Amino acid sequence: MATIDANPPSGTRDFLPDESARRARAFATVREVFHAHGFSPLDTPAFERIEVLTGKYGEEGDQLVFKILRRGEHEATGEADLALRYDLTVPLARVAARYGSQLPTPFKRYQIAPVWRADRPAKGRFREFVQCDLDIVGSASLLADASAIRAVGDALVALGLAGFRVLVNHRQALAGLVEAYGVPAELEATTLVALDKLDKVGVDGVADELETRGVPTSAVDALRADLGTSDLVEAVAERISGAERGAQGLAEARRVIELVGDVPGGQVTFAPLLARGLSYYTGPVFEVVHDDLDVTIAAGGRYDGLIGMFQGESVPATGGSLGLERILMLLDEDQNSTAPDVVVTVVDEQLAPQMLRLASRLRESGLAVDLYTGAGRLGKQLRYADRRGVPVAVIVGPEEDDAGTVTVKQLGTGEQSTVPESDAAATIRAAIGSA
Amino acid sequence: MATIDANPPSGTRDFLPDESARRARAFATVREVFHAHGFSPLDTPAFERIEVLTGKYGEEGDQLVFKILRRGEHEATGEADLALRYDLTVPLARVAARYGSQLPTPFKRYQIAPVWRADRPAKGRFREFVQCDLDIVGSASLLADASAIRAVGDALVALGLAGFRVLVNHRQALAGLVEAYGVPAELEATTLVALDKLDKVGVDGVADELETRGVPTSAVDALRADLGTSDLVEAVAERISGAERGAQGLAEARRVIELVGDVPGGQVTFAPLLARGLSYYTGPVFEVVHDDLDVTIAAGGRYDGLIGMFQGESVPATGGSLGLERILMLLDEDQNSTAPDVVVTVVDEQLAPQMLRLASRLRESGLAVDLYTGAGRLGKQLRYADRRGVPVAVIVGPEEDDAGTVTVKQLGTGEQSTVPESDAAATIRAAIGSA
Repeated sequence: MATIDANPPSGTRDFLPDESARRARAFATVREVFHAHGFSPLDTPAFERIEVLTGKYGEEGDQLVFKILRRGEHEATGEADLALRYDLTVPLARVAARYGSQLPTPFKRYQIAPVWRADRPAKGRFREFVQCDLDIVGSASLLADASAIRAVGDALVALGLAGFRVLVNHRQALAGLVEAYGVPAELEATTLVALDKLDKVGVDGVADELETRGVPTSAVDALRADLGTSDLVEAVAERISGAERGAQGLAEARRVIELVGDVPGGQVTFAPLLARGLSYYTGPVFEVVHDDLDVTIAAGGRYDGLIGMFQGESVPATGGSLGLERILMLLDEDQNSTAPDVVVTVVDEQLAPQMLRLASRLRESGLAVDLYTGAGRLGKQLRYADRRGVPVAVIVGPEEDDAGTVTVKQLGTGEQSTVPESDAAATIRAAIGSA
Repeated sequence: MATIDANPPSGTRDFLPDESARRARAFATVREVFHAHGFSPLDTPAFERIEVLTGKYGEEGDQLVFKILRRGEHEATGEADLALRYDLTVPLARVAARYGSQLPTPFKRYQIAPVWRADRPAKGRFREFVQCDLDIVGSASLLADASAIRAVGDALVALGLAGFRVLVNHRQALAGLVEAYGVPAELEATTLVALDKLDKVGVDGVADELETRGVPTSAVDALRADLGTSDLVEAVAERISGAERGAQGLAEARRVIELVGDVPGGQVTFAPLLARGLSYYTGPVFEVVHDDLDVTIAAGGRYDGLIGMFQGESVPATGGSLGLERILMLLDEDQNSTAPDVVVTVVDEQLAPQMLRLASRLRESGLAVDLYTGAGRLGKQLRYADRRGVPVAVIVGPEEDDAGTVTVKQLGTGEQSTVPESDAAATIRAAIGSA
């Protein structure tokens, strides 16, 4: 037995109390914001029938799905019939198909839940991680896109992030951009990938890459000229508006930005080069970045083709996803937070029943109370309290018990006072306040 | 595509908003109580390395573990290397082995998380269900056993259950019982199973079953006599105290009952026939039952042999588990609770930006505000609000917009009033209060 590896499986994590509590608090904060925005929670199973997932994530994605072996007599076949959830969107699509008429339209739901991907584990990349999605299903209105962005922005602020930028673009504006510069349609994807690197490699770097990727010199030159201007957004937007497909997309992106207005804690701008990787977007797309952080902390967009996948019809939908795992890594670790308010010590086994009652009464007054249940003298008990980050301990020996008093000790200063038991809660609160 | 079954996998459930919120609220209630008792949260991955789980649950349990197929080039082997969590105790044992010295001693943790078992689905039995465990690792003190029972009792009360009974017994008292009546040691397990049915089949039924199971007639007669007395607990306890192994167990069970004292909302009694099914218990065991409900709503006990399984040494541990899934089915469904406080309607697309701002300002005042983002005239929007269980809608047309006013409409009565926008939040609150 002793030879079994006690680490969690590769790419997964155990969350010990402080970290577990920190995560739970962040989840609760986001839930509260989403509720305040009129979104409702949805829970789906950790696994789905395998045919629900396959073919939804491309060949690469299918490889990363964790598959569950059939059971009983079928186990020997080596076949899988179930698979762990890979994202929260396919389950939402299944729910929309299954319960459609039972759900309000539009259906505004959020889900904060783990997903599993058999990615090669790397720093900051896990095989089990929490996704945090909010979506509005059944609305084609740009008001839905703007509402999703507002809710995401408010959640980021509530989590303690400020100074972020919301970049907005539109799938059709991207199509128009490529068309306007004379890039052949079959090079659209590769061109967008190259343009997306502007911040990293600069204008010349992008131009070089475009040429390498086979984009005609005339298009590269036109792009180089516009990307090099002081107001590249204006220059590119001007170009897009001249293209047949681009004008509508541009207008919609600008309408979304107008609707969103000022986001507390962030600013919202048009980003004509923003090309969200996922090919399923059909309308406005957005990404939230933070200049200090150099990562995308939230993203989303409209994907009118996806939700209807099980119904065989198109259902308009838009949404956003918070990069909660990343955000949790960025936020300052706050103070020890799983610590109860006070440890009630047990210095005399005979008095154990009284100590249990005392702990209960203190809880009734609203305090979080840990009763020491180990074996150990007072010194060890106080070290236990200190280690848990508890500021105050309560001690009752036979003398205190006879007198109906308790001793309240501040662990930081060692200061202590003996008070009537009826004053214990108030004395503890005062001691916590001064700790 | 349209042919794919949109139901959740057999034995699993989708939780639509009201149910999802109800569950989340129950989990939050329990978390709060456990925190107040000094327990800390722990999270472990949904799956474990398969060797961590196998051999821990007996042959039958091993059959019920969901196994995950190896990936990539190894998939074709049909072998599994990971398996879904079957309970929360084995992961706790692994964590205790892995992080032992980083954890306080005693380590008081709770975990509320789904587990997966490939049981044949049946009414009230699921393949994915939430377990809710609290344990104290590293303490051999009966104070730990009593603390676990108190925390479980307080959680039940907080969930809205009262009038329950906590039945306490002790593994060694059971051993002593069998010994005292002269049952051969190899018939201990089968005897306890028969005795456990007393409530269902009566004294004669138990006696018949004991004889069928091969228990000597002298033992059956002695048991029949004691089980038939008016105070069978006293009669059986008397017998147990005469047996070598029984006296100590009996004394410990009684000490635990003394320590627990009066549980608010319940009563605590000695139950000499209570034989918790799990063979890993080593000390006090308990079960919480409710006479109106005829199910076990919580249970637990001391299991000193289990936590050290990965360390190759014995680590004392005790704990309890709330039957949250059962409790959730028993509790009255409360009112619609995912509904926001108010729906802000959009009757004029031109005013959409203003409506978004209005929704934001109302949120800042603490209201949960849904902005209608669909397509539809006012009547449809009000039906949407009504369907979501929202008591109040806000309407702003061009006239109200010009005048800086909003109309607040109560959906129940149809009553409405037009007030300056600065009074909107207060008017909505008043309308909610009278709804």
